Amino acid sequence: MVLKTGEEYIESLRERGPLTIYMLGEKIENPIEHPIIRASINSVALTYDLAHNPDFKDIMTATSVLTGKKINRFCHLHTSTEDLQNKVKMQRILGQLSGTCFQRCVGMDALNAVYLTTFEIDDKLGTGYHQRFIDYIKQTEDEDWVIDGCMTDPKGDRSKRPSEQKDPDVFVHVIERRDDGVVIRGAKAHQTGAINSHEHLIMPTLAMRNEDKNYAICCAVPADAEGITYYYGRQSCDLRRLDQTESGDVDCGNSVFGGQECLIVFDDVFVSNERIFMNGESEFCSRLVESFSAYHRQSYGGCKVGVGDVLVGAAASIAEYNGVENASHIRDKITEMIHLNETLYSCGIACSAAGHKTPAGNYLVDLLLANVCKQNVTRFPYEISRLLQDIAGGLFVTCPSAQELSNPETRNIIEKYLVGAEGVDTIDRIKMLRLIENLTLGRAAVGYLTESMHGAGSPQAQRIMINRLSNLEEKKKLAKSLAKVSK
Amino acid sequence: MVLKTGEEYIESLRERGPLTIYMLGEKIENPIEHPIIRASINSVALTYDLAHNPDFKDIMTATSVLTGKKINRFCHLHTSTEDLQNKVKMQRILGQLSGTCFQRCVGMDALNAVYLTTFEIDDKLGTGYHQRFIDYIKQTEDEDWVIDGCMTDPKGDRSKRPSEQKDPDVFVHVIERRDDGVVIRGAKAHQTGAINSHEHLIMPTLAMRNEDKNYAICCAVPADAEGITYYYGRQSCDLRRLDQTESGDVDCGNSVFGGQECLIVFDDVFVSNERIFMNGESEFCSRLVESFSAYHRQSYGGCKVGVGDVLVGAAASIAEYNGVENASHIRDKITEMIHLNETLYSCGIACSAAGHKTPAGNYLVDLLLANVCKQNVTRFPYEISRLLQDIAGGLFVTCPSAQELSNPETRNIIEKYLVGAEGVDTIDRIKMLRLIENLTLGRAAVGYLTESMHGAGSPQAQRIMINRLSNLEEKKKLAKSLAKVSK
Amino acid sequence: MVLKTGEEYIESLRERGPLTIYMLGEKIENPIEHPIIRASINSVALTYDLAHNPDFKDIMTATSVLTGKKINRFCHLHTSTEDLQNKVKMQRILGQLSGTCFQRCVGMDALNAVYLTTFEIDDKLGTGYHQRFIDYIKQTEDEDWVIDGCMTDPKGDRSKRPSEQKDPDVFVHVIERRDDGVVIRGAKAHQTGAINSHEHLIMPTLAMRNEDKNYAICCAVPADAEGITYYYGRQSCDLRRLDQTESGDVDCGNSVFGGQECLIVFDDVFVSNERIFMNGESEFCSRLVESFSAYHRQSYGGCKVGVGDVLVGAAASIAEYNGVENASHIRDKITEMIHLNETLYSCGIACSAAGHKTPAGNYLVDLLLANVCKQNVTRFPYEISRLLQDIAGGLFVTCPSAQELSNPETRNIIEKYLVGAEGVDTIDRIKMLRLIENLTLGRAAVGYLTESMHGAGSPQAQRIMINRLSNLEEKKKLAKSLAKVSK
Amino acid sequence: MVLKTGEEYIESLRERGPLTIYMLGEKIENPIEHPIIRASINSVALTYDLAHNPDFKDIMTATSVLTGKKINRFCHLHTSTEDLQNKVKMQRILGQLSGTCFQRCVGMDALNAVYLTTFEIDDKLGTGYHQRFIDYIKQTEDEDWVIDGCMTDPKGDRSKRPSEQKDPDVFVHVIERRDDGVVIRGAKAHQTGAINSHEHLIMPTLAMRNEDKNYAICCAVPADAEGITYYYGRQSCDLRRLDQTESGDVDCGNSVFGGQECLIVFDDVFVSNERIFMNGESEFCSRLVESFSAYHRQSYGGCKVGVGDVLVGAAASIAEYNGVENASHIRDKITEMIHLNETLYSCGIACSAAGHKTPAGNYLVDLLLANVCKQNVTRFPYEISRLLQDIAGGLFVTCPSAQELSNPETRNIIEKYLVGAEGVDTIDRIKMLRLIENLTLGRAAVGYLTESMHGAGSPQAQRIMINRLSNLEEKKKLAKSLAKVSK
Repeated sequence: MVLKTGEEYIESLRERGPLTIYMLGEKIENPIEHPIIRASINSVALTYDLAHNPDFKDIMTATSVLTGKKINRFCHLHTSTEDLQNKVKMQRILGQLSGTCFQRCVGMDALNAVYLTTFEIDDKLGTGYHQRFIDYIKQTEDEDWVIDGCMTDPKGDRSKRPSEQKDPDVFVHVIERRDDGVVIRGAKAHQTGAINSHEHLIMPTLAMRNEDKNYAICCAVPADAEGITYYYGRQSCDLRRLDQTESGDVDCGNSVFGGQECLIVFDDVFVSNERIFMNGESEFCSRLVESFSAYHRQSYGGCKVGVGDVLVGAAASIAEYNGVENASHIRDKITEMIHLNETLYSCGIACSAAGHKTPAGNYLVDLLLANVCKQNVTRFPYEISRLLQDIAGGLFVTCPSAQELSNPETRNIIEKYLVGAEGVDTIDRIKMLRLIENLTLGRAAVGYLTESMHGAGSPQAQRIMINRLSNLEEKKKLAKSLAKVSK
Repeated sequence: MVLKTGEEYIESLRERGPLTIYMLGEKIENPIEHPIIRASINSVALTYDLAHNPDFKDIMTATSVLTGKKINRFCHLHTSTEDLQNKVKMQRILGQLSGTCFQRCVGMDALNAVYLTTFEIDDKLGTGYHQRFIDYIKQTEDEDWVIDGCMTDPKGDRSKRPSEQKDPDVFVHVIERRDDGVVIRGAKAHQTGAINSHEHLIMPTLAMRNEDKNYAICCAVPADAEGITYYYGRQSCDLRRLDQTESGDVDCGNSVFGGQECLIVFDDVFVSNERIFMNGESEFCSRLVESFSAYHRQSYGGCKVGVGDVLVGAAASIAEYNGVENASHIRDKITEMIHLNETLYSCGIACSAAGHKTPAGNYLVDLLLANVCKQNVTRFPYEISRLLQDIAGGLFVTCPSAQELSNPETRNIIEKYLVGAEGVDTIDRIKMLRLIENLTLGRAAVGYLTESMHGAGSPQAQRIMINRLSNLEEKKKLAKSLAKVSK
Repeated sequence: MVLKTGEEYIESLRERGPLTIYMLGEKIENPIEHPIIRASINSVALTYDLAHNPDFKDIMTATSVLTGKKINRFCHLHTSTEDLQNKVKMQRILGQLSGTCFQRCVGMDALNAVYLTTFEIDDKLGTGYHQRFIDYIKQTEDEDWVIDGCMTDPKGDRSKRPSEQKDPDVFVHVIERRDDGVVIRGAKAHQTGAINSHEHLIMPTLAMRNEDKNYAICCAVPADAEGITYYYGRQSCDLRRLDQTESGDVDCGNSVFGGQECLIVFDDVFVSNERIFMNGESEFCSRLVESFSAYHRQSYGGCKVGVGDVLVGAAASIAEYNGVENASHIRDKITEMIHLNETLYSCGIACSAAGHKTPAGNYLVDLLLANVCKQNVTRFPYEISRLLQDIAGGLFVTCPSAQELSNPETRNIIEKYLVGAEGVDTIDRIKMLRLIENLTLGRAAVGYLTESMHGAGSPQAQRIMINRLSNLEEKKKLAKSLAKVSK
Repeated sequence: MVLKTGEEYIESLRERGPLTIYMLGEKIENPIEHPIIRASINSVALTYDLAHNPDFKDIMTATSVLTGKKINRFCHLHTSTEDLQNKVKMQRILGQLSGTCFQRCVGMDALNAVYLTTFEIDDKLGTGYHQRFIDYIKQTEDEDWVIDGCMTDPKGDRSKRPSEQKDPDVFVHVIERRDDGVVIRGAKAHQTGAINSHEHLIMPTLAMRNEDKNYAICCAVPADAEGITYYYGRQSCDLRRLDQTESGDVDCGNSVFGGQECLIVFDDVFVSNERIFMNGESEFCSRLVESFSAYHRQSYGGCKVGVGDVLVGAAASIAEYNGVENASHIRDKITEMIHLNETLYSCGIACSAAGHKTPAGNYLVDLLLANVCKQNVTRFPYEISRLLQDIAGGLFVTCPSAQELSNPETRNIIEKYLVGAEGVDTIDRIKMLRLIENLTLGRAAVGYLTESMHGAGSPQAQRIMINRLSNLEEKKKLAKSLAKVSK
């Protein structure tokens, strides 16, 4: 039985070698117990705990095609379109229960993308990457690892290719080739859950040309490898986590769960041969990037929908607390929130149901529909968030600090004047308002809004794919035929 | 082999008894050859011809669960979520090839809804409707009938229930009960393909109460039954069809295919017992209406997407003809059209993939997602149409009549001055512009826009269902749990 | 007193020499009485009649700055920002009362643009165009002329400049220069009210370069000048006008008023010197085009708002006729229609209020805000129209022909089954539905939708201007200053 | 000369008696120097400094109609539609230069609304409020006061009227009437700039009925009146202000300027007669509320447009820093931001230009258009903000803390890897990203987004007014006349 519990997962993080982490100007010695980091660890731990929860274990686990063992779905190679749909359903549940980014999807998506790409490289070039990678996946499954799918380079001057950059290090690349492996240098930005991972699965960030060969590197390194430094990314309202009182708890909005992004710097990190899955085969970078992106664009049709459910629930709750739940315009706005959210879910399900088997044997989503899915995710969460702000009323940005609640005198005044509908506890009303702040402006907004925009590729990246995949010539023929044009 | 060809279908229409049809102030004696009607018949005939076309026959046909015979999918009881998806794919193809409404979906949707409802009535009340209806379906399959799913009553004063109306006839109802059957009176409005059908499968239009028992009638009558009169609905630009010259052909935009809606009046039509599938069981009306609506709301995620493909193709073609296909804003608008269209398709596929088996054994779409699908269809086609008008330029509403092309002198002037990009035939450019007029303002716009709005229920009908089906209480719990509210 | 009545205006059209007009394959000998054309003439005649109407004459007239006489505002040079606002108010009223395009704005906008441009040409080059043009305006005022502001060339291959076209005639140009004037050849497309005008004021359609000198021609020719041919543009549902019975009246939706666009071909038309207002000064084309466009983009913030009022009124009326006027979603949609329509009006008023005096002395709208105004007009009417279709219900596209009303038997059935709320005349309900068809799909939709898109320049033309006029450098400084960046 | 400088303004705050202020669980003794509060004071101070700035003083000042003195426009009674437009222009400038809410508009709007309402009360009831209020305005002008227009009550259970609330204090009301004045109790929520004001001008928050007489109170109290307590409202990312190092400066995004909202509690505050401007005349509450709301809804068409300019500038700057300023999709998105922002400005200008003189003599905006203005403000800033997030890339939510810049070692890494286009200072890029965070998620987002939603009334409040003011009956007549319906 390879399924860890949340507690075992956290223990496994402690067992890693020391990491070099900078946050808020300090070197963090014990990331596990740091209140800002801990909330993000809790989100990941949920992916473990639910695998043991009778209500969710069927969707949270799968049977390994490699070993036949019961494994966490996050380590799974998708074996059917039903599997692809189950992935989306699992992500929705986790979004619902954490109200934030739970950080483990990118690894699952990377595993599936590298799996199919290594097969295709070997198939064409006779290399041996695929078997190596199968071994790596087996280890991942057995250890129930969190894998950081590590793709986005800092990119420097965006009008230039990797090999044209002034500083070659703004894209991760091989700086030394040895018999037993390679040495890499560079950095990966916006790395979700970086510190909460056991492994980084490094992939190139864009299609590469022949002259970019040194950048065509795909490999795995452990999170505690020598030469790695982590720079913790700030999030809106992050400092509220540092208030460890009950008041801080209230003002966080969602005090248990949070997300995490880091800048990871690889300062001459050695990678041994058995952990290298592409090394210079630049013509396969686009396949890897497009398949990974497609999987990850599908993901957003699950996780953000789950968080969207929380926004819908917050809207309905605060309407109730304000005593306006029966106003027709309130009901209509909630309906619109649901409608938009379920449209996103439909996109997540559709690209899964329309998926297909790859030559390697795992299942890949429909590329066009996955891009359509993500494109909608760059829009609707913003409107859902706007509607929630509308329904909430303005108090969620003007409410006094919960620290006033510690003082009985000020608490009385707060409770007297911020009272809502009869029978509603005023403190409950404040807590719900803080959750709304968290979701639309605060720490969770980073994930629900900005990550929805840029995660898995910015909107224009999807538009390029949508245009390319749309078979426009065929559509022109349809129109020309109906119009009876001569050619 | 029960699969008719298009020609055989048209022949079967001729074999019906005479129909009483009024159009443009006249009684139409030969509807088959009437140029306005014929275009709509051609659309239906396509559903037959494609079942014989090697490229499409797999998707156009299915194996009957009742007889094991190969049948047209339009007569089919869905047996899996894959079947539900195939329905949507078939509809998209027909929309692509006809550029209009092909009228046969409503019957397919009615068959499946009545099938599952009669099972549930019998199951609860011990009636014998289900077997009767199975017999009816077998006949439908064997005859390869076009069924008019006949639901929408004229409704009169919308603030009143059927039994409260001043004139009881504004809802179809039983006016006489006899041993061998019933006599019905009333009308059904907006009946798609009414004259092109073999049968009308009459269903109640809304949830009924006990006092509305006479309105709780579901039954089948042949199109040529005594007592039926058809009033042909006008469509935008319908009169252009009456110009039977080549010029008329051009100015129609899409001269081969068209849609059709009628007002059908039932003036005391007798229905024998074996054709009655509900008769007073008012508590089952809502199940019938909701399941039929869900199937039909799914349908729009297929057929309108197919027509949407034609709009995309027309946009790309006219951009080419105008010489602007490489302008970045043109490309971006076409990408947006594709994106919106594929979002609709995603919704059609998702509610299918998330479908489930009913107690009767056929498959029903996911009710929430089907309503979400249709809700989007009430919006995106309008934006797709607007974008096409943007890309087209204004000539499609100011272009001289194609009749000027018959006169060599005026033809020369038209060809000289309406020239587009080099190498493009000016007449081809005009034809494409007329197709665009047809799709965004003309006869096809009736189907692509207004029918997208109101067919299968107006937008508010979906919003009510979305709100009801959304499990808001569960979502409130999610928010309250994360906010740590006391209850 | 120079103010003509509508009847006098129509008489003045009759007094013109014969025009060569082609429509629907025929040469039209008597355009005044042709039912399709007549509706468009009625719209123009309204601009005359209202100048005599006590309720409207203050807004419809102005005092000539050239002669001190009371003149129709359509002939007026704007003398203040209040004048600019009054122009918008006048246009809104005419849109309200005609429900369509009344065709006279383009001439008013051309007069003001040519006025300020000729001043600037003379000022720089010492030419004598401005005085000539003042004389021309005086004549326009005295004769109370309808001027066709004649700008848009057919353009041929849009990737090429005028002088690069295969056929030089796709832009109007001077083909011969004589002592007493010039001879021009070419065509102008989409000419609103072309046949209903007394004069064509020809202007270049885009910024010209030195090599395009022959295309830099601005001059006036009478509508009946030798060498002019008119090709009447088809409009959606145009043929319904040909049914001259009462039924046709109903099915037209708006039987009295209509719009008109033509292709005008200038086949070697002579223009005498005193009617030439620019002749080769290509560097001033952009000033003329931009100022004319700005005036005309302002116009849309008036006329389309007036038509929008009709759509709002139609929505409220049909809701009442259907018995649903108190449904909260109906009220909310009507509120949205009003909101969007008044936003357009705000844009029309704002660019007027922010206008400024030109060196020539007349007032010009704010260029940036006028472009913003028109950009919104390319969007909101489509949404207003969509909302009207939503509120209307589907009957406006499936309703039988009004010709069935002539037959008492069928009339009874129609009246029985298409009944609405109690107390509402069924025929009134049908008339309102046909007005809605007219406005959203039919002849008026050509003006309310497609003309809103492309008239006064397609959307991208405004976006280019908005970007250019936005003073982005200044805005960057604001951001950099607040962010305290080093430079 | 009554125009204070910013420094004199701050000095005048120090001269007030002590205020009781709670923030973050503490009693704040010196609000002027508190870093969170100080940023908000700086914004107000800007309204003083600009009145002395040669570039802006014309727009920032006006001539008092009461005394003929040159006064700050924020103290001014509007004397023309040009004045109303100048108000909007002034607000735009302040939004541009502060990038946040500068808090002084609400007082200006209250002065004008109370001025016209007191006139109308006296006119009808023969009371003497108007002269009293004129005296109060004179003092305001002479002292160059910041007035807090104090309207929004906490409201308790929103389904109940003031006199029906369980706790009567959730609306401010008179609890004791004395010969020399009244004693009031209650609270006002969301009070913008409360602590930065000299005076609170208290107004009822909604239309009152006869039974709510004690709630129909309008009066002025000084900010340091006995019995007032302030509860400082938290804002997103507020704690970053507490880091007083250079790093904190960077991470604030906009370290100089900020907004402020408080809950003000009036615990039995005495108001002397000469400061009472309405006392029980409940029938005039709606006039006061509607006119104040209209003025304040106009205001948003100025101030938010100014902040919008900063967002546009930030978008253009970061595009440049990222090296993508010439990408067509980037340019198009910036154009869209400008377009939306200028549409808001058009609405601000239009309701001003369409204003009218009140019986009291000052000018009031057009009520319908002012509501339309604010309704757009509840939408477009969210889309502008979304577009800015799109253009920015994701780094603004994942960027490490600026505190890493203090350590040379980590600073080197940050500078190396977060480099942008060639020649751009990496730290400048980070500063711009933090400004973007501030504007779209952080402290300024509170003002730019949520305040745009709820300030001056939530969206539904405007919709009710838009519907009520739209003259729907007149619009129905237009439609019925064109459709030729019988009545």
